[in-house]
Amino acid sequence: MTTGIASTADHLRAALDGPWGAVREAARIQLADDKFAGDPYLDYRAARARVLDQMRAIATMGIAERGFRLENGGTGEPGAAVVGLEMLAYADLSLWVKAGVQWGLFGGAVENLGTQRHRDVVKRLLSLDLLGCFAMTESGHGSDVANLETTATYDPDTQEFVVHSPTPSARKDYIGGAAEHARMAAVFAQLITNGENRGVHCLLVPIRDEHGTDLPGVTTYDDGLKGGLPGVDNGRIVFDRVRVPRENLLNRFADVAPDGTYDTDIENPSRRFFTTLGTLVRGRVSVGGAAAAGARVALSIATRYALKRRQFSDPDNGQETLLLDYRSHQRRLLPLIARSYALAFAQNDLVRRMHLVQTGQDLDPGAQRALEKRAAGLKVAQTEHATRAIQECREACGGAGYLTENRLVTLKSDTDVFTTFEGDNVVLTQLVAKELLTSYSDEIRELDALGWVRFAATMAGDVVRKRSGVRQLIQTLRDRGDDTVDEADVSRRSVQLQLFADREDYLVRTAGHRLRARAEDTAPFEAFNNAQDHILAAGTAHIDRLILEEFIEGIAGIEDPAARELAETVCDLFVYSMLEENSAWFIMHRFMSVERAKAVRRGVNELVDRLRPDALTLVEGMGVPESMLRAAMLADASVFERTAHSEAPV
Amino acid sequence: MTTGIASTADHLRAALDGPWGAVREAARIQLADDKFAGDPYLDYRAARARVLDQMRAIATMGIAERGFRLENGGTGEPGAAVVGLEMLAYADLSLWVKAGVQWGLFGGAVENLGTQRHRDVVKRLLSLDLLGCFAMTESGHGSDVANLETTATYDPDTQEFVVHSPTPSARKDYIGGAAEHARMAAVFAQLITNGENRGVHCLLVPIRDEHGTDLPGVTTYDDGLKGGLPGVDNGRIVFDRVRVPRENLLNRFADVAPDGTYDTDIENPSRRFFTTLGTLVRGRVSVGGAAAAGARVALSIATRYALKRRQFSDPDNGQETLLLDYRSHQRRLLPLIARSYALAFAQNDLVRRMHLVQTGQDLDPGAQRALEKRAAGLKVAQTEHATRAIQECREACGGAGYLTENRLVTLKSDTDVFTTFEGDNVVLTQLVAKELLTSYSDEIRELDALGWVRFAATMAGDVVRKRSGVRQLIQTLRDRGDDTVDEADVSRRSVQLQLFADREDYLVRTAGHRLRARAEDTAPFEAFNNAQDHILAAGTAHIDRLILEEFIEGIAGIEDPAARELAETVCDLFVYSMLEENSAWFIMHRFMSVERAKAVRRGVNELVDRLRPDALTLVEGMGVPESMLRAAMLADASVFERTAHSEAPV
Repeated sequence: MTTGIASTADHLRAALDGPWGAVREAARIQLADDKFAGDPYLDYRAARARVLDQMRAIATMGIAERGFRLENGGTGEPGAAVVGLEMLAYADLSLWVKAGVQWGLFGGAVENLGTQRHRDVVKRLLSLDLLGCFAMTESGHGSDVANLETTATYDPDTQEFVVHSPTPSARKDYIGGAAEHARMAAVFAQLITNGENRGVHCLLVPIRDEHGTDLPGVTTYDDGLKGGLPGVDNGRIVFDRVRVPRENLLNRFADVAPDGTYDTDIENPSRRFFTTLGTLVRGRVSVGGAAAAGARVALSIATRYALKRRQFSDPDNGQETLLLDYRSHQRRLLPLIARSYALAFAQNDLVRRMHLVQTGQDLDPGAQRALEKRAAGLKVAQTEHATRAIQECREACGGAGYLTENRLVTLKSDTDVFTTFEGDNVVLTQLVAKELLTSYSDEIRELDALGWVRFAATMAGDVVRKRSGVRQLIQTLRDRGDDTVDEADVSRRSVQLQLFADREDYLVRTAGHRLRARAEDTAPFEAFNNAQDHILAAGTAHIDRLILEEFIEGIAGIEDPAARELAETVCDLFVYSMLEENSAWFIMHRFMSVERAKAVRRGVNELVDRLRPDALTLVEGMGVPESMLRAAMLADASVFERTAHSEAPV
Repeated sequence: MTTGIASTADHLRAALDGPWGAVREAARIQLADDKFAGDPYLDYRAARARVLDQMRAIATMGIAERGFRLENGGTGEPGAAVVGLEMLAYADLSLWVKAGVQWGLFGGAVENLGTQRHRDVVKRLLSLDLLGCFAMTESGHGSDVANLETTATYDPDTQEFVVHSPTPSARKDYIGGAAEHARMAAVFAQLITNGENRGVHCLLVPIRDEHGTDLPGVTTYDDGLKGGLPGVDNGRIVFDRVRVPRENLLNRFADVAPDGTYDTDIENPSRRFFTTLGTLVRGRVSVGGAAAAGARVALSIATRYALKRRQFSDPDNGQETLLLDYRSHQRRLLPLIARSYALAFAQNDLVRRMHLVQTGQDLDPGAQRALEKRAAGLKVAQTEHATRAIQECREACGGAGYLTENRLVTLKSDTDVFTTFEGDNVVLTQLVAKELLTSYSDEIRELDALGWVRFAATMAGDVVRKRSGVRQLIQTLRDRGDDTVDEADVSRRSVQLQLFADREDYLVRTAGHRLRARAEDTAPFEAFNNAQDHILAAGTAHIDRLILEEFIEGIAGIEDPAARELAETVCDLFVYSMLEENSAWFIMHRFMSVERAKAVRRGVNELVDRLRPDALTLVEGMGVPESMLRAAMLADASVFERTAHSEAPV
């Protein structure tokens, strides 16, 4: 890594590190200190205090500044900001969340929804002089942000907004920072002026004084213990007619004049709403990245353990067998490692796209919206992967996996909520599918919750958009080969990609048909609901296809032949295990013969066999430094490493 | 439940309560008190103390006595013991585990492996005058019990055993009670006398004095925090030549005379070993039951929440939609409820079989061994179900699901290790398959770890045993119908059972073929390992078939027509979702046409639709009293129950 000839693992790591590799390398050194690790023995109040201390140390490192524009005191490198903060996830996920709330969500709201008049707030939150929270979700509405119940009613007499929680379900809930540390909240509320509701807007509401006492009209509650993330002080906020100055409205997209006149550049309320939310896409990008980072830590721990721990002796040589030499263990861990590789490349690409859009280098009018869809899809894929992979790692390490000192259970409990926050995975998958089904028509954003169903249903003909990108990639892959493509040869990349693309096309097209068929004789909700599993499958197929494309692109960037060859095999394992998981679908829809499906299953076995000798290289390639694994059992050589076994009669 | 005409839910609950329904009913009242619930805000040391207090209260209730013979101070009702203790799982899983360690594992070892001379120990452990632990697992060996490294060497000079941990990996690990409370350990060790190793035996070793201080030669360590079960004091024990009297050997199956002569009624060391372990089957039976109980609590919470919580409005009526009215939500929860029903019936049957064997009412020579296989299989099925179901429930409740006050995360973290303890699920599935592959031949138990592979491979012809039971049941089901069976009609119970049985037969037969084919040119480990995924699939198919059979038998016992009809629909959903999950296999092996597989998928949708109106009845039928759910959000009506939604422009 630092001296001598670079190993295959080094090349893989460099590839997975992506465009901001230097940021990752610096963070590996900066964050290796024990002071950034979590301490599971602290009670939750002490854990919160510790994380706040850790944040103060982070605040001096120049990491957070990258996420802000020059004029706001930052360095204007959003890509580097996401990647740099993601590295905190290797140290402790509570720290990552808390930092993400302060600089990503709260800071991001002020930075992206505010204007010049909020510049001072950015400076203060950057240095942690001002601790904030992001008060969007309410007990009654999480996924359905448009129907939040909190109101901000403008009073022209005093030139103030009156922020109020009109119902019990309007209380802000699960808000990181609300329980203890935040002094100010970026509150999402229905803006009412001159008697008219203008929809959800965000405004800054001070909630605590400098002693941490709730300000008049504000009542905060502690959400208390959660399934994990003990260092994050989630809480509730209830507003009782709290008055804030007119200028506290984050007025980038709309403003209220002193007399109460509402003014906006985006006349369409629905477009305004989605533009507002769209600027906050970084949160979703970040959650996916951190979840995938957590999965990499867990897979590194479990694989290294499986390379030490032995159980049951092989009668032929009397040696006890390493866990990773069992087929079932290889099948448990190696496909998950392959998926981690795939997702790392996809995440790098996503961050790069986000960076180009947010720094104004990508001015394509559709880029922002495509970014939002991709961020939603990869958030789903990565958080789902984390939940599944970490669970598998825990079980694969048996009793040792259940001890907190071996970290897997902490990773598991901390990442558990990632499938929920920054967008519930089911809702996000649906969002992805909806964009596909309606070919990104602008109109659909202006429709009510299910209006898109009616829209999708009335569209003439097939709704599959031309995916010129994927078709071109398939062609390129075909051109690369020196012989013609044998459609049955699923080991060929072009065939693999074609299968993924076919599945997506077919599911999107038939979901559209189904909506249309139903819509003729039922109400939109029923039409939608009847096809919901189908719609979700279409979304998932799209996400899978994107991930494979990015894996292929990522491999193309590896120059070292040995590392590239290994990555190709990993990509095969990713593809084969995805095909195996979905083989019922492929057979049922005649995209795969039974024989091909059997070949795929055999292929998974052959691939885990082939990758077994490179398991440690693959782990090192994932780039979690050994010093950051912090699993006691990996250090406990005398207990777990045995070369011979004791004598016993059975 | 107590007055008036019994509802459908009452009838279902009575059916699921099974043969010891009265025990369950009594426990619902006895354990409803807040004092038996867990308190997640206690630190782990306080949590342990609280659980010990709870156990002292339980000790006065006559629950534990049921597990012991009359002559030992018990009432001799092992079935009632398992069921009664299982009910503790509704209150708090730490309490269940701690009680299970004391009365089930430690008590069970003394009761079942000891003799008259250990009678006083049983009496003391029953009343909690003596707290014990079950010191089997070591850091180096968990699944491979036969190769434990701890030694108990007999010294005829002093007529003592010298208990010793000869290597670092010989330390006892993850032992409940070892960290704080246990005064005595039932230690599994290689018994060496007159220079000969006689294999693993169990003996009683005092480890702490009355002040809780380690006795000379004993060093205990605290495993500290775990992924859950904070009320259980798991720890490590290292022995440095600790001497205990000869009589401390639990000598039911083998004894050492004062002069060191080894004496046993079971000459074959391997049969002795398996007989010893076999008597401890109750632990495995209990773990499955408690895991399933945890899943029922979680499903009750998540389903009740889905019947209150609304999100997104239906444009046709302006009403926000209940979560459970979404197809995707129905598909998340209802098949898991169906599986819970299936497993409840299977568990009742298992406990009944165990009761008959352990009370000497079933003297069939194969009964004990069949019981062990069934217990292993259902332990796997139920613990895996718990992990999956509780995770799904957590996610289905979104942010609220992540708050500890809503209990799902506690259920999740507490049950997580159930897939590991009392036998790792992969190893147990393999054990089930091994029995199938070798047709229960006695010989295989005497072979070394992989000797059975050689044995299975040399068996002539097919190894599928005649499953007279299942064939008869299929015939009975066919006879019941008044028309001939249409093989394609997968809605018919006999066809369903045939599909499950066909899958098992085919997998077992072909796994045998594969072992044979391989064994001709490779070593046993390679032959086994190459087929491991196949072997595991055979074990799983067998377990699935057993569960379906017991579901069918269970339904036959429901007298109320409405309840029976509902249970039949639930059984259909169980079958259809299992067929859907395995549809790739069924199609690939020509047991199902593509058309039939598509009908199955549609069938799942139709069934969740049909069961949706009965969701609450199904939850009530699972039998977790509302007072024992302890999820804050279910009481918080004003926050989650809304009938209309606020106005918003989008």
